[in-house]
Amino acid sequence: IHNPYIKNHTYSNRGMSLEEELNETNEYYSAADIACIHKKPTPLQIVKVDYPQRSAAVVREAYFKQPSTTDYNGVYKGRYIDFEAKETKNKTSFPLQNLHLHQIEHMKQILQHGGIAFVIIKFTFHNEIYFLDAKHMIEYWERQTNGGRKSVTKQEIETKGYLIKCGYRPRVDYLHVLDTLYFS
Amino acid sequence: IHNPYIKNHTYSNRGMSLEEELNETNEYYSAADIACIHKKPTPLQIVKVDYPQRSAAVVREAYFKQPSTTDYNGVYKGRYIDFEAKETKNKTSFPLQNLHLHQIEHMKQILQHGGIAFVIIKFTFHNEIYFLDAKHMIEYWERQTNGGRKSVTKQEIETKGYLIKCGYRPRVDYLHVLDTLYFS
Ligand SMILES: [Mg+2]
Ligand SMILES: [Mg+2]
Repeated sequence: IHNPYIKNHTYSNRGMSLEEELNETNEYYSAADIACIHKKPTPLQIVKVDYPQRSAAVVREAYFKQPSTTDYNGVYKGRYIDFEAKETKNKTSFPLQNLHLHQIEHMKQILQHGGIAFVIIKFTFHNEIYFLDAKHMIEYWERQTNGGRKSVTKQEIETKGYLIKCGYRPRVDYLHVLDTLYFS
Repeated sequence: IHNPYIKNHTYSNRGMSLEEELNETNEYYSAADIACIHKKPTPLQIVKVDYPQRSAAVVREAYFKQPSTTDYNGVYKGRYIDFEAKETKNKTSFPLQNLHLHQIEHMKQILQHGGIAFVIIKFTFHNEIYFLDAKHMIEYWERQTNGGRKSVTKQEIETKGYLIKCGYRPRVDYLHVLDTLYFS
């Protein structure tokens, strides 16, 4: 069942970030009553807020916090869904420095509690988007911890992961991969 | 099985907000490997960011956005968990203006996809925290839409909901209610 999808350059839509593509995908899933999955807001440490009279409160000083969890979560066919999305310009591998230890620990916890966790990786040069189950990403992370390579090769991702079919609606049909892996 | 819990004033901890109590509860659930449930970051519309040399990016202008979903979500025993937490100083009812239409629609979606959705309501005057399943809150919302009362009486919440046992660890044991309702 590996890589059953044909890459569709027609809908590649250069210039749209992976996050925008996924948000559009999730809006489609929601509108079509397929799933309810959302991006979490960016975590900010708010330091100073002004409360001007007769108008809305304004945040005047805030800092980006390192995320302790992942980008997206929600529910699909009764199951808890949780994933991190990452783009890389790298042509041959995915550098593990794109992830944080907290995120790996979070994915481990999700698996432990019976949720479905994965990473969506876009190789922007190739314009290919892959689905990689969290259990594999955790293995690669631990390989690094044990002195192994600091990245996952594209070939490894092609072998253990799945190329996600991209199209018009949904734009990045990652739930189709889940159907194959978890719901069939 | 209604209200099986004895209110415990010892741990009432006046001065701690419901959000703080729930964050502490969720940290306990996580550390004890019981569940993985987190508060979503506050959604902000970021307008202006400064990038000072040699130091972290600073958000200089941002506005609080009306949340389109709920406060908390995560996974417990394989199920998707989603809830909104609200405090009221009102002694006899919970005003529905504390919720937004978007949040009600979100809860409907969660139920539709097989998730577990609910509201946690704290009556600060009484120092009581209730669990109310989303299906009931949706009914009360629709009653209002159909010209009915603009609040849910405390008595209705006592009848349809469950008083949550408060203690030391976990502080607000809402998963105990879920065990009774969904896992027994
Ligand atoms: Mg990301
Ligand atoms: Mg709230």
